[in-house]
Amino acid sequence: MKNFMDKDFLLSTETAKKLFHEHAEKMPIIDYHCHLQPKEIYENKKFRNLTEVWLGAGDRYGDHYKWRALRARGYNEDSISGPDDDRKKFDQFVESMPYFVGNPLYHWSHLEMQRYFDIYDVITPKNADKIWNEANKKLETLTAREMMYKFNVKTVCTTDDPIDSLEWHKLMNADSSLKTRVRPAFRPDKAINCELSWYKDWVLKLASVVGYEINSLADLLKALEERIAFFDSMGSKLSDHALDVVHYVKASYDEANEVFVKAMRQEEISDHEQDIYKGYVLVQLAKVYNKYGWVQQYHIGALRNNSQKMLKEIGPDTGFDAIEDQVYMEKLSQLLGEQDATDELPKTILYCLNPRDNYALTVLAGCFQKEGVKGRVQVGTAWWFLDQLDGMKQNLETLMQVGLVAQSVGMLTDSRSFLAYPRHEYYRRLLCEMLGNLVESGQYPADELDTLGKIVEDICYNNAKEFFGF
Amino acid sequence: MKNFMDKDFLLSTETAKKLFHEHAEKMPIIDYHCHLQPKEIYENKKFRNLTEVWLGAGDRYGDHYKWRALRARGYNEDSISGPDDDRKKFDQFVESMPYFVGNPLYHWSHLEMQRYFDIYDVITPKNADKIWNEANKKLETLTAREMMYKFNVKTVCTTDDPIDSLEWHKLMNADSSLKTRVRPAFRPDKAINCELSWYKDWVLKLASVVGYEINSLADLLKALEERIAFFDSMGSKLSDHALDVVHYVKASYDEANEVFVKAMRQEEISDHEQDIYKGYVLVQLAKVYNKYGWVQQYHIGALRNNSQKMLKEIGPDTGFDAIEDQVYMEKLSQLLGEQDATDELPKTILYCLNPRDNYALTVLAGCFQKEGVKGRVQVGTAWWFLDQLDGMKQNLETLMQVGLVAQSVGMLTDSRSFLAYPRHEYYRRLLCEMLGNLVESGQYPADELDTLGKIVEDICYNNAKEFFGF
Amino acid sequence: MKNFMDKDFLLSTETAKKLFHEHAEKMPIIDYHCHLQPKEIYENKKFRNLTEVWLGAGDRYGDHYKWRALRARGYNEDSISGPDDDRKKFDQFVESMPYFVGNPLYHWSHLEMQRYFDIYDVITPKNADKIWNEANKKLETLTAREMMYKFNVKTVCTTDDPIDSLEWHKLMNADSSLKTRVRPAFRPDKAINCELSWYKDWVLKLASVVGYEINSLADLLKALEERIAFFDSMGSKLSDHALDVVHYVKASYDEANEVFVKAMRQEEISDHEQDIYKGYVLVQLAKVYNKYGWVQQYHIGALRNNSQKMLKEIGPDTGFDAIEDQVYMEKLSQLLGEQDATDELPKTILYCLNPRDNYALTVLAGCFQKEGVKGRVQVGTAWWFLDQLDGMKQNLETLMQVGLVAQSVGMLTDSRSFLAYPRHEYYRRLLCEMLGNLVESGQYPADELDTLGKIVEDICYNNAKEFFGF
Repeated sequence: MKNFMDKDFLLSTETAKKLFHEHAEKMPIIDYHCHLQPKEIYENKKFRNLTEVWLGAGDRYGDHYKWRALRARGYNEDSISGPDDDRKKFDQFVESMPYFVGNPLYHWSHLEMQRYFDIYDVITPKNADKIWNEANKKLETLTAREMMYKFNVKTVCTTDDPIDSLEWHKLMNADSSLKTRVRPAFRPDKAINCELSWYKDWVLKLASVVGYEINSLADLLKALEERIAFFDSMGSKLSDHALDVVHYVKASYDEANEVFVKAMRQEEISDHEQDIYKGYVLVQLAKVYNKYGWVQQYHIGALRNNSQKMLKEIGPDTGFDAIEDQVYMEKLSQLLGEQDATDELPKTILYCLNPRDNYALTVLAGCFQKEGVKGRVQVGTAWWFLDQLDGMKQNLETLMQVGLVAQSVGMLTDSRSFLAYPRHEYYRRLLCEMLGNLVESGQYPADELDTLGKIVEDICYNNAKEFFGF
Repeated sequence: MKNFMDKDFLLSTETAKKLFHEHAEKMPIIDYHCHLQPKEIYENKKFRNLTEVWLGAGDRYGDHYKWRALRARGYNEDSISGPDDDRKKFDQFVESMPYFVGNPLYHWSHLEMQRYFDIYDVITPKNADKIWNEANKKLETLTAREMMYKFNVKTVCTTDDPIDSLEWHKLMNADSSLKTRVRPAFRPDKAINCELSWYKDWVLKLASVVGYEINSLADLLKALEERIAFFDSMGSKLSDHALDVVHYVKASYDEANEVFVKAMRQEEISDHEQDIYKGYVLVQLAKVYNKYGWVQQYHIGALRNNSQKMLKEIGPDTGFDAIEDQVYMEKLSQLLGEQDATDELPKTILYCLNPRDNYALTVLAGCFQKEGVKGRVQVGTAWWFLDQLDGMKQNLETLMQVGLVAQSVGMLTDSRSFLAYPRHEYYRRLLCEMLGNLVESGQYPADELDTLGKIVEDICYNNAKEFFGF
Repeated sequence: MKNFMDKDFLLSTETAKKLFHEHAEKMPIIDYHCHLQPKEIYENKKFRNLTEVWLGAGDRYGDHYKWRALRARGYNEDSISGPDDDRKKFDQFVESMPYFVGNPLYHWSHLEMQRYFDIYDVITPKNADKIWNEANKKLETLTAREMMYKFNVKTVCTTDDPIDSLEWHKLMNADSSLKTRVRPAFRPDKAINCELSWYKDWVLKLASVVGYEINSLADLLKALEERIAFFDSMGSKLSDHALDVVHYVKASYDEANEVFVKAMRQEEISDHEQDIYKGYVLVQLAKVYNKYGWVQQYHIGALRNNSQKMLKEIGPDTGFDAIEDQVYMEKLSQLLGEQDATDELPKTILYCLNPRDNYALTVLAGCFQKEGVKGRVQVGTAWWFLDQLDGMKQNLETLMQVGLVAQSVGMLTDSRSFLAYPRHEYYRRLLCEMLGNLVESGQYPADELDTLGKIVEDICYNNAKEFFGF
C-alpha cells in the first residue's frame, strides 16, 4: 500500500518518480489562463483567515468546486456563499471532507494544506483546531504574491474585458519588486454575444473608451483592434473566447452589419443571425490576433446559469453552470477553415468541456497545422469540471493517441484562487505517471529516458514559453 | 492468478476485501426500481424448472440480456423466446456460455448459480446435467419469496400504471408473513405520451377509474393527483418516467390544454406540441410528487422497438431496444429549472442510457441541490445496457470526480427476474474495489478506513433508506 | 520493467502470452477492407527506398498518420507530401520519433522495422544511417507480394469503384503464382452522393460502362445491380459505403426518382432530398447485396476536407479529415429496419469514427440478428483515427460488455500501405492482453483456456472466413 499523499503521490513506478522528481518538479509555472484579480496581485492581498482564501467569501474567491460539493451535502447556502461565521464554514467543510472520497477536492485540499501551509495532517474534524490555527498563523505573512512565489510562477495571464483600463497591469509592469510577470488577456465575449441584453450598453461603453461613436460593425471592429493594440502594448499575448455553443455561417460584412444594427436596436436576434454575426466577428478578430502574433483560445461547451432561482438569489458564476451536449464539429471546422483559407489562422487552443468530444476535437485540431509552429492549433488541458484525474487522463490519453502530447502547452488553472497552483502539480504527477507507464510496460525505450525527461519539461514549461512568446 | 469467481471475486486488494466482507456484504437490499409482478410475489410463485426462472418463457421472465446474446449466436427464435423444449433451451444456453467471455452474462449466470442454488461449477456442457438436476431440485422449495429472502431484500418497489388497482399490493400490505416490504411506484408514461395511438383509450380508462369525465387537461391532472394520493396511501414513495427523448418548452396551461384536446381527437401531434404538453405535464406532476415528499425518476435515452419485424412477431420489450444519441441537456436543464424556480423540484434521480452523457448529466444534477437533502438531484446507477462492469465503472468514476459518490442511493435491478439480486453484489464488489484502490494507491488515508466502511454501507443501503423515506 | 517492444510486447501476463503465442500469432490474415492498388499487387511493385514505402511520395503510399504528425511538428509541406529529397524526409521522420511518445506511430514504426526488415534498433537519429542502409538493402527483394507473404495474408479485399473494369483483378485471378487471394469490393459512394458536383458525370460514365442510357433511378439501379453481378463474378463478397452522416427517410420510388432527376439536372439537393434519395438507394442496394450473399459495410462519421486551403493545394485524402459529431441512431435504426422488415438485410458491419458512439452503435447492432448467422449485424473494429491502443480497447471493451466479442470478424487495415500488416499483430496482442486479464483476475476460468484460445483464433481468422464466405 502506498502512503497517503506523500512525495510520490500518484507516482506508482520508478520511472514515474524519476520523471517527476528530476524533471517536472523543478520547472517553473506559466499560468496562461486564470481569473485572478490584477488589483489583488498588485496590492499583495492579505487574507483574514483560512476560510477567506480557501472557501471563499462574498462573491470573491468562491471556489465553485467546494461550493457545489457542500450544496450536494445539503448545507444551508448562508454557510456556503453567505454571511455565516468563517470558523463555522471551515468546520463544516472539514466535517464534509471524508465524503469527498474520489473527488479531486479531497486531493486538492490536502495538497493546498501541504504546499502552502506545511500542514501534512489528514483533514478531519479531530485535526480541525490545529489546521485552523496553524494556517491562520501562516497567513500573517503568506500574501497573494508569496503564494505565487512559493510555486515559482513565472507568468500569469489574467482575463480582462476589452474596455478595461488595465491600470493595475500598468502599475505591475512598472513594479520591479514583482517577481511574477502578470499579463492581461483579451476576453471580448461581450462584443460577440449580440443576443444578450447588455450588448448595446457595452458597445456604448467601448465607444466612450475609444472616443468615437460606434455606428457600424466596421466601427466596432476598428475599436476592438485599437484595444487589441493597447492590450498588446501592455504585454498581452493572447485572447480568450467563451463560445459555449459554436455559432458560424459563412457571411459577408453587410450581412453581419445588419445583425449589428438589429442588436443595437435591441431587437431579438435569431439563432441564424447569431451564426452570421458571431462567425463574422470571430473571423475578423482572428485576423487581428494573427497580425499581432497572439494565441487565441476558444472555450467550448458550457451550459450556464442552470438554476434560474440561484441566479436571481446570488448571481452568475457561483457554481450553477454545467456541460453542453450540442454538436458543433462542422461549424467549428468551417470557422477555423475560413481563418485558415487566407493563412490568417492564429495559434489556437481549443478547450472542450464535454469529454465525449475529446477525440473529435483533437483530430480536428490536427487538420490545421502550420509550417514553423509546433502544434499551431491544439486542444487545451482538461477544462473546468474535467481538471480532475479521470478528465485529465482522458484528455492526455487522447492527445497521445491522436495528437502529439509532447507539444502540448500543458496545464493552466483557470482559477480565481491563489491556492490553485497545486493543480499544476496534480497534472504533472499524472503526466509523469502516464509517461512512466509507457516506459515500464515496454512501450517506450528505457534508454531514451533523458529525451522523455526533456519532453516532460517541455510540456510543463518550455512549450508554453515558446508558443505564447513569453 | 486469482481463482475463478471465488469469495473475493473482483476484489484485488486487501482494502477492497475488507470493505466488501466487513461492510458491503452484510447490508440488506433496497431494490427501489424493478419490474417484478406483484401478483407473483403475493402468490409466492413456484417455478417449473430452471429454464422458466433463468431464461424466461412466453413473455414473462424473459431475460433480454440472455435473449439478445442467444440471437447474436444465430439461434432460432423458437428456442429463445418461443415454444421450444425447456431442456433444449437450457442446453443451448450452456453451450453458448464460453462465447459470452467478457460479457456480464458470464458473471451474472455464475453468480446466480452460486448464490441461489449453491452450484459452484463452471457452466459448461459437461456440467449441464448436474446443474439442471441440482437446480431443479432446489426449485422445489426455492419460491419467489425465498429468492428475495436469500438476499435480505428489505424493500422492493414495483412499477405500476396509474390506473392499476394495486390489489396485490393491498393484499401484501396486509400479509404479515411477507418479510419484504413491497411498495408500488407510479409510472404515468401513458399520460405523458400524447402522440401515441393508445393515449385516448388510456385517458378514458383513467376516467372510469376516477369516476368522472376527463374533458380537459385540468381534469386529467386532477385525476392523476388522485391516483398519486391513492398510490401514496398504499405505500408508494416514488414515481418513474421513461423520457427516451427529453421534451420541454416553457408553456402555459392553455397551450398545453390545446395539445391535450388535439390528442384526444387523435390528431397528429408535432414535435413542438410534444415539447409543450410533456414539459407542462411533467412540471405539474413534479409539484404533486414534491407535495407528497416523493422521489421522481427520469429514465432518459432509450431508442425503442428498432426491429419493426420482431415487434410485429413477438411484441415490445423483448430485446430489440437500443440507445438514443439525441442532445438534451438544455431542455432537461429548463425542465428541472422550472420545477426549481418555485421551489417545487422533488428529490430526483436521473438515469442515462448513453454513457457518453455521464459527465454532462452528473454535472447538471449538481446544479439543483437543496438545503437539508443529501443529493436532492442525483444521477442513478448505470442503467440497463450499462449495468455491466465497464458501464458501472464509468458511472461510479463520474460520480466520484464531479459528484459525490458517498451520497449515491446505489444499486437497483430494474429487472423482471427474481434471479437478478446478484447484480447488487456485482455492483458492491466493484464499488469496494474502486474505493479500495483509492486507499491502496495513497489517494485516501488508510487510517480513515472505518469512515470509508461506513460510506460503503451508506451507498449500499442507508442512503436509499433515508432518501426515499422507507 | 518490461523490455522495449520484445516478443511479449503488450502482453503483461502469462495467460496473455499463451493466448498470443500459441493461438493468435500463428493465424493467417484476412484483410477484408483496404485501399491497396490492385495494379501494384499484380505487378509486384518494387520500392526505390524506405521513404517511398514507409512515408509516402506523391499522392500514393501517403501515410496520413505520419503526415499529420509531421505537420503538427511544424515541418514544411514539401518535406512531408512534397518533392523534397527522400533521405531528408527519412531523417526528419527519425528525428521526430521521440516526440511521438504515446502515439501509435511510435509502435507501428518499430513493428514495421522489426517485422519487415528484421531491424530491432530504436528509431533515433543515431541509428538513422544503419536503418536507412539495412532497410534499403532489404527492399531489393522485399516486393509488394513478399510483404504480404511475410504476414501470411490469405485474402485481401481492395476498394473499387462500380465502373472499374477490374482488369487487374482478372489478371490476378488467373495468376497461379499469387499466393494471396485478392478480391475486389464494391464501393458505390459516387452513386449515393447525389448532391456532389461530379454525380452526373459519374452516372454518365456508368451508362457507358453498361452500354445503355440511364434516364431514371430504375435505370441506375439496374446498372448497379449488373455491376454487382460482375464484381461477384470476379470474386467480390462485400460492398462498402462511406456514409459520413446517415441520411434516411422512408420514401417511395417516385420520390427518390424525383431527386435523381434533379441531381442529373445539377440542381441543388436539399438535406431532406438527400434523406429520400440516399435512404432509398441504400435500401435497394442492400437487397441486391443480400441476394448475392454479400456483406455490406457502413463507415459512419467522417468529417472530410477540413482545410479548404490544403484541399486546393494538394487534394483530398491527404490527412485533413476528422471526426463528425452528428446524431444518427434513429435514422440508422430506420435504415437497417427497412431492410430487415422484408428480411433482406444483408450481413452488415457498422464502423463508427466517433468513439462516443461505441455503446449506442454496438447495442443497435444487437437488435438486428438473424437465425443461422453469427453476428449478422456487428460493429467493426476501431476505425481510422481509432485503430490505436485506446481506441481499440474501447471498441473491444464495448463489444465485450454489450456485444459478443467472440463473434467479431476482427481486424482489418483500411490502409493503402503494404507496411500496414503489423496493425493486425497490434490488435491481436491487445486482444490477448484483455482476454488474458479476464482469466488472471478470476473473471474467466483458467481451465477453459483451450476454449478461449479457440475463440482468439476465431476472432483473428475463422470468424471472418465464415462471415464473408472466403
